[in-house]
Amino acid sequence: MSEVKKVRLGVLKLGAIGTAVILEYLMDERADRKDLITRVVTSGAKMDPEQAEEVAPKLLEFNPDVVVIASPNAALPGPSKAREIVAQCKVPTIVITDAPGAKAEEDCQAKGMTLIVVAGDSMIGAKREFLDPAEMALFNASVLTVLAATGAFNIVFKELDSALEAAKTSGTYTPSVIKIKARKAVAAGNFTNPYARAKADAAYRIAEGVAAVTVEGCFKMKEAEKYIPTVAAGHEMMQEAAKLALEARELEKGGDSLVRMPHYKQGEIMKKTKLLEAPEVAK
Amino acid sequence: MSEVKKVRLGVLKLGAIGTAVILEYLMDERADRKDLITRVVTSGAKMDPEQAEEVAPKLLEFNPDVVVIASPNAALPGPSKAREIVAQCKVPTIVITDAPGAKAEEDCQAKGMTLIVVAGDSMIGAKREFLDPAEMALFNASVLTVLAATGAFNIVFKELDSALEAAKTSGTYTPSVIKIKARKAVAAGNFTNPYARAKADAAYRIAEGVAAVTVEGCFKMKEAEKYIPTVAAGHEMMQEAAKLALEARELEKGGDSLVRMPHYKQGEIMKKTKLLEAPEVAK
Amino acid sequence: MSEVKKVRLGVLKLGAIGTAVILEYLMDERADRKDLITRVVTSGAKMDPEQAEEVAPKLLEFNPDVVVIASPNAALPGPSKAREIVAQCKVPTIVITDAPGAKAEEDCQAKGMTLIVVAGDSMIGAKREFLDPAEMALFNASVLTVLAATGAFNIVFKELDSALEAAKTSGTYTPSVIKIKARKAVAAGNFTNPYARAKADAAYRIAEGVAAVTVEGCFKMKEAEKYIPTVAAGHEMMQEAAKLALEARELEKGGDSLVRMPHYKQGEIMKKTKLLEAPEVAK
Amino acid sequence: MSEVKKVRLGVLKLGAIGTAVILEYLMDERADRKDLITRVVTSGAKMDPEQAEEVAPKLLEFNPDVVVIASPNAALPGPSKAREIVAQCKVPTIVITDAPGAKAEEDCQAKGMTLIVVAGDSMIGAKREFLDPAEMALFNASVLTVLAATGAFNIVFKELDSALEAAKTSGTYTPSVIKIKARKAVAAGNFTNPYARAKADAAYRIAEGVAAVTVEGCFKMKEAEKYIPTVAAGHEMMQEAAKLALEARELEKGGDSLVRMPHYKQGEIMKKTKLLEAPEVAK
Amino acid sequence: MSEVKKVRLGVLKLGAIGTAVILEYLMDERADRKDLITRVVTSGAKMDPEQAEEVAPKLLEFNPDVVVIASPNAALPGPSKAREIVAQCKVPTIVITDAPGAKAEEDCQAKGMTLIVVAGDSMIGAKREFLDPAEMALFNASVLTVLAATGAFNIVFKELDSALEAAKTSGTYTPSVIKIKARKAVAAGNFTNPYARAKADAAYRIAEGVAAVTVEGCFKMKEAEKYIPTVAAGHEMMQEAAKLALEARELEKGGDSLVRMPHYKQGEIMKKTKLLEAPEVAK
Amino acid sequence: MSEVKKVRLGVLKLGAIGTAVILEYLMDERADRKDLITRVVTSGAKMDPEQAEEVAPKLLEFNPDVVVIASPNAALPGPSKAREIVAQCKVPTIVITDAPGAKAEEDCQAKGMTLIVVAGDSMIGAKREFLDPAEMALFNASVLTVLAATGAFNIVFKELDSALEAAKTSGTYTPSVIKIKARKAVAAGNFTNPYARAKADAAYRIAEGVAAVTVEGCFKMKEAEKYIPTVAAGHEMMQEAAKLALEARELEKGGDSLVRMPHYKQGEIMKKTKLLEAPEVAK
Repeated sequence: MSEVKKVRLGVLKLGAIGTAVILEYLMDERADRKDLITRVVTSGAKMDPEQAEEVAPKLLEFNPDVVVIASPNAALPGPSKAREIVAQCKVPTIVITDAPGAKAEEDCQAKGMTLIVVAGDSMIGAKREFLDPAEMALFNASVLTVLAATGAFNIVFKELDSALEAAKTSGTYTPSVIKIKARKAVAAGNFTNPYARAKADAAYRIAEGVAAVTVEGCFKMKEAEKYIPTVAAGHEMMQEAAKLALEARELEKGGDSLVRMPHYKQGEIMKKTKLLEAPEVAK
Repeated sequence: MSEVKKVRLGVLKLGAIGTAVILEYLMDERADRKDLITRVVTSGAKMDPEQAEEVAPKLLEFNPDVVVIASPNAALPGPSKAREIVAQCKVPTIVITDAPGAKAEEDCQAKGMTLIVVAGDSMIGAKREFLDPAEMALFNASVLTVLAATGAFNIVFKELDSALEAAKTSGTYTPSVIKIKARKAVAAGNFTNPYARAKADAAYRIAEGVAAVTVEGCFKMKEAEKYIPTVAAGHEMMQEAAKLALEARELEKGGDSLVRMPHYKQGEIMKKTKLLEAPEVAK
Repeated sequence: MSEVKKVRLGVLKLGAIGTAVILEYLMDERADRKDLITRVVTSGAKMDPEQAEEVAPKLLEFNPDVVVIASPNAALPGPSKAREIVAQCKVPTIVITDAPGAKAEEDCQAKGMTLIVVAGDSMIGAKREFLDPAEMALFNASVLTVLAATGAFNIVFKELDSALEAAKTSGTYTPSVIKIKARKAVAAGNFTNPYARAKADAAYRIAEGVAAVTVEGCFKMKEAEKYIPTVAAGHEMMQEAAKLALEARELEKGGDSLVRMPHYKQGEIMKKTKLLEAPEVAK
Repeated sequence: MSEVKKVRLGVLKLGAIGTAVILEYLMDERADRKDLITRVVTSGAKMDPEQAEEVAPKLLEFNPDVVVIASPNAALPGPSKAREIVAQCKVPTIVITDAPGAKAEEDCQAKGMTLIVVAGDSMIGAKREFLDPAEMALFNASVLTVLAATGAFNIVFKELDSALEAAKTSGTYTPSVIKIKARKAVAAGNFTNPYARAKADAAYRIAEGVAAVTVEGCFKMKEAEKYIPTVAAGHEMMQEAAKLALEARELEKGGDSLVRMPHYKQGEIMKKTKLLEAPEVAK
Repeated sequence: MSEVKKVRLGVLKLGAIGTAVILEYLMDERADRKDLITRVVTSGAKMDPEQAEEVAPKLLEFNPDVVVIASPNAALPGPSKAREIVAQCKVPTIVITDAPGAKAEEDCQAKGMTLIVVAGDSMIGAKREFLDPAEMALFNASVLTVLAATGAFNIVFKELDSALEAAKTSGTYTPSVIKIKARKAVAAGNFTNPYARAKADAAYRIAEGVAAVTVEGCFKMKEAEKYIPTVAAGHEMMQEAAKLALEARELEKGGDSLVRMPHYKQGEIMKKTKLLEAPEVAK
Repeated sequence: MSEVKKVRLGVLKLGAIGTAVILEYLMDERADRKDLITRVVTSGAKMDPEQAEEVAPKLLEFNPDVVVIASPNAALPGPSKAREIVAQCKVPTIVITDAPGAKAEEDCQAKGMTLIVVAGDSMIGAKREFLDPAEMALFNASVLTVLAATGAFNIVFKELDSALEAAKTSGTYTPSVIKIKARKAVAAGNFTNPYARAKADAAYRIAEGVAAVTVEGCFKMKEAEKYIPTVAAGHEMMQEAAKLALEARELEKGGDSLVRMPHYKQGEIMKKTKLLEAPEVAK
């Protein structure tokens, strides 16, 4: 029997967005894909050009077949520098960013890179009086909950899978611009119950709305007595969005209609609905 | 004015545990530490020795002053191999793992490495009929919530900070074994309200208890009609633990007594209690 | 003893906004004010100029000392016509409207009328497949909850009281433009607990955000399969905002710090904090 | 094409009950009925005979084809006076009141008026130490929620529609006495799920029970330390009733079986069940 | 050191009420009282005179110093027969019953027995189509929750303790009639937060209101399609009452002001407020 | 018509476990079984051998056809003594106990008695600083909720019914050992919705886990500042388990698929699913 062809996924993370936190695991959620080798290099919370210059080449040393670059605001110098470096290796590249990163669209298109803008992945309330490690982790947990339960992550992992599949089969991967707004997210969320979908849609929109609040708190207010309550309000919104997204999921549980889409051994995306049934490779 | 001494933190992740997902951001939650450069290399969801052999040397090329190795079950061959490789570079090393990883205690001690066992970071329900990317992300969000809201993460980041501080000051870092069980977690959780603490304690214990359920479902049951409901029960437990942990946090909000411990510019750990007050460097 | 001077408040309602629903009762919540006679004339849900022409003169026949005109979008022809008619009677006039009504600012200023824009009083999801009497009532109940629990209504009734007071004392009432956004609402909400305030702030912002969703569903989408889920999402957002606003209030109950501001016999605004204490006339 | 016959609905409100707050909008929830002109005149919170004498004639000047008189306790002098005045115009008249208003039954029957007693529309806790504008609005929001979500409002608007229809077609409208107790309310609530119905039934009964508590607090207790906690308990009951009524509605959402009954263009009552389906005129 | 005098408490249960279920344990909640011996004899769910004739004498064979007779409706023949039998032994006797049992007041007074009427201990929805063992247990769990969390049980155990104390000291025990309505229950509930008290009061009143519903369902309706939804509504009310009672308790936890009153070794009633403090014998 | 044969059930309770609290009512939940006479004798909270020696003979005087002995830890001297006494009367005997009572297995088998170990019926947090009558009742209410809603009680009452049936028909009752762990409980819980089952399973496991916490708090810790928070955590876990168990039940209500198993007149176990349908004797 012939050896299985393995594809190498390289993930570069600069700074923190919710999507990035869990990204590499989205592609191989049970660590049982035979077709995939994943390598991730990140610079932690920082994302200036110097970081990019050090970590991006290191990722390329892993010889990835597909590269993902995840960062807040992809239009900033750091992520831009990362794209510049990665562009040299001429592999299919997917840039994942938050709403402000939409400004990198032109550059991504010029470089033939896919751009995924996760609108619900709103900025954190990064003020010292408010944000400590615990608050940071909890905000990200809420973001993960919203993005996972609404369907946004489904769009992300499917796009990456299509690039990986192209790499495996020497097929063509066509870069595109994917803006994940509420309606697109829930359309990918496989909801059976329309009220669950409406709740997920509402949750995503609340999550999207957080950015305006945290940006106001972080960049437009000077006095602590103004920005602390403001970023706190932003986090309360995200926590509420997470609750509502889970409520949507619980509604589907109530009808035993929660769709699951696990990966199969060679990276095929399977699908199933009833909890006790077996998944099948989606056609 | 003299240049600030920067310390380099290298994080190696093999496979997924909740603590690892957010680890590098715990150390620099607002990306404003002047004293810290973080580099992370990971092999994604997989954690066999071949992965370790490829990623561990790559991390070392970043010349870290302190290394963290995070993985499920640190006693498995992959993480053990990673420790073997990292041990050669003679830098202070902290191994972070889940309950089964406690078996690596002897090896860590022999190598002079700190071992942090996060007992509440229970194994996921990794069965294909159940675990898809969304379910994986949601489980990790619940785990993050429990670990952040109870206080477990405070222990983790403080231990890393002490190693970083030693590296910065050319001081001595003494390796140790830290097992984060419920009582230890909530003792670090800075609870003012004793009922909030009791709820957090309960939440952590429920989270710890998940491992027995998912391990049973993943490794001891053969028929899908048995293991699917079992791993599903494990995830319901973790979701409930997250709710209870948040309830504890809300109780503290009710008294405006929620303690926050942000990092300051040179990595000092600050502390504050009332939302509108300024944090101070803890003495 | 001299007869108490009574002031006559005339309220004209055209169409439905949440604030209007409860408006006249906000001014005399226990029907025990000795200084106030209230008269309300409304055209029900409809708000075209023909309605205004019929109901506005009828209100004026009640000889009001102060007039309030409440409607959605005060810039539309109906409410504009009402202002035109009311302007002739030369009494202090307060226009209350929702966010789109901000466009009437210039006209109100030209006529010397106060304009209160209640940004959180978002448009309902007025599509036949979705909105029936029950859904309409429930949406308004959610809106009322948000506006009452955050503090927005406090701004409204205080402004009306100041106009009434001027009328009683033959003093001067100075018209102004008051835009009730989240921060202004919660500043009037008398929160003691800063987390309660943050939750109320978040709730108000979610409520504000509903308008974009319902407007999109009502005016920008043609197919029922698009607009039904969209307006449904808008209502889920408002329901969630109401829950969060109540959560804020419950937090204040937890500290027995919920401020109440009842009217006294001559319309004085009183204030109290602990449930069992007596209110006093605020100085 | 012939001109559409329009019917004129006149609503007189004296004092506040929950049903009255939203009444005119129940009849034309999207403001798109071609067959209906609505005129409302109210005296605000007060309801003594002097109020009635001023506002009732004003309403009649609008030449209504059908009159609705809504007030607390219809047996009090104010509402009785209003009926006396309205009776002179000989149009079909519907009196809407709360439980104590049942005492007006004989008078209504003598005058050929329909009497609708909304038992769940319990009296508010009208004590100055407790009831301020915000608390008043929140109580009414809870009442609206209970009455809308259980089905009580369906009875109200259908009865008014039948009077309007008779007026439009010059048909006969037969006055009757309609007492909306729990079982009648939920029978009109179109519940598909029997547990949703049981919850709605329970919610309505709790709401009904509030009256005994607030009446005790308002009229039978003298000391503030007794009546404050009592009226507060009454409001907690109503808030809980609202939660339970919404829970019933959520249960129906879970089965996508929530029945909606929107008005059609000529006032026909339509019906639909699944969220995404179109309503049809009920036969 | 002299032997401790022990007092013998005899409890007779006929049929089921919530208070009875837990009664004997209320007196010795940690089984560490040195002064008390408890004996209970019960006839299970049945309560006709034949039962009483068999179990009452058996209880008396235990030579109790104080007797408690607990049953639904103490005016029925069974409980009356039990009182007749117990009366012969001339020991202080306390009759505990639900609201209908108030009709036994005269007989109890004639026999010199104390009568405790627990108004919140409403009748269960005893219809075969609805009540199975699980539903029965859950209803009783809700009742227990309401009675414990509001303060009703405090009245019960204190009254029994006073009788036991009299027996121990050869003092006089004066029989009385104690009707536990909402205000009395919460007055014994030691609430620090007045909103917690209001919620507990509301919960108790909802629980009281259940009886009218279950009695209607059990005795006044003939058709299953009527009585099933009715008794189901009664149970939903009780479940909601339990939730609200727990909410009251959680509010006290939030302020660390939850009063506890454990028994001490010789049956003294202790008292404490903060969770971590030691209880003291109440003076 | 011949007289119905009645069977006599004797229940002996020593000390308190949740299952015991409600035991006799589980067998005759509406007090309408024609075939059953129940007699219960208990020693209250205490369970030492002296208690057993006094109450066990008294129970036997009732001439039971089947005996149940319920107690915590059946291996302790008190319950063991009770078994010794009861064994002499040679009637089918069922021992019901909690997890530590599993140690009585050998003795029960030697005596031909059935042993039911209810693993979820965890020990209470019996420390004076924490456990007062109210807390005791609330813990038991939570335990009842978990055991009833998951299905554990179904196993208990069916086993007793089989012994009663054998006694009625002079058939053979075969003693056995029944350990009610989570999977067994929910298998008896008749869940239709697999997520409801998973939640119930999770709830039961959390309840089981409480024992380790309360045992640690009660027996392994000496200082109040350690054991108070620990037993408090145990109770928070049980309360959370109860919430989750009810959530499972609510999920079944959502699908109108909640199975009920009432007793019929001669003790037959009936079964039904939809709320409004009639139960039938299960074949």
